[in-house]
Amino acid sequence: MKKLVKSAGHTSANTAGSTADAASVQADIEGVLQTYETALNASDIDTVLSVFAPDGVFMAPNSPSTVGADAIRAAYTGIFQAITFETVLTVEELVQVARDWAFVRTSSNGHVTVNAIKQRVPDANHELFIFQRGDDDAWKIARYAFASTNPAPH
Amino acid sequence: MKKLVKSAGHTSANTAGSTADAASVQADIEGVLQTYETALNASDIDTVLSVFAPDGVFMAPNSPSTVGADAIRAAYTGIFQAITFETVLTVEELVQVARDWAFVRTSSNGHVTVNAIKQRVPDANHELFIFQRGDDDAWKIARYAFASTNPAPH
Repeated sequence: MKKLVKSAGHTSANTAGSTADAASVQADIEGVLQTYETALNASDIDTVLSVFAPDGVFMAPNSPSTVGADAIRAAYTGIFQAITFETVLTVEELVQVARDWAFVRTSSNGHVTVNAIKQRVPDANHELFIFQRGDDDAWKIARYAFASTNPAPH
Repeated sequence: MKKLVKSAGHTSANTAGSTADAASVQADIEGVLQTYETALNASDIDTVLSVFAPDGVFMAPNSPSTVGADAIRAAYTGIFQAITFETVLTVEELVQVARDWAFVRTSSNGHVTVNAIKQRVPDANHELFIFQRGDDDAWKIARYAFASTNPAPH
């Protein structure tokens, strides 16, 4: 995962807590995103599920929104059957808006391999994550929407 | 704009203020979404821009994220040149997470007409909005990502 300098700047400007708290929150959330990136590239469904809130919502393109852990597991199962990822996430901004809520905007770049035909193609997306801190103090992905930033296929 | 019953339920469960405040916030934000829907269907760029925060970010598919009012205006100018919308937004959930922050998940259904070839085709998307209340007490779109929920073109 790449980190942009402006991510840190944006976070420390938040008004939800002290600067030390903000740095800790930022590190925690970036850790979750790193876990997600590694799991995505390993087609590791259990670890992907571990970073989502139980009532999380996953909004992938070309599919209805998937609500809740069971539906999200089914969605990633289908995705990992179809595609293998080699992707790097870059944090564009990370903003804590309340003690237990934050959002993160990322971009991603890399390749995907379409498993059925072993075709490896460039892939680029932008992502909007809403994170929630649970009763166990762990930040999890509460909502996650993304879309390709490559030109539309013709 | 259609409203789902569960939207109201979700909002009133928030912990950011009283129930009366929450109802008012919900009405305000739904009003902004109604303004956006009407402007979108009228290809009305100025009104679209009026519902975005000046430093808002618009994350449309098949294009890099557009950051700030000037970039967002350019993006919608291109979109409205290419496409005419007939779309209805449905609020799936509306969650106020802090005094001045909320997120809204919507779905949209309708048709778009590709202006160059006058082809009218079904269109369906899901949207994730982050709203921020400004110093003037107006809720504006701070971040907005969407993607088609129709099957991928082949």
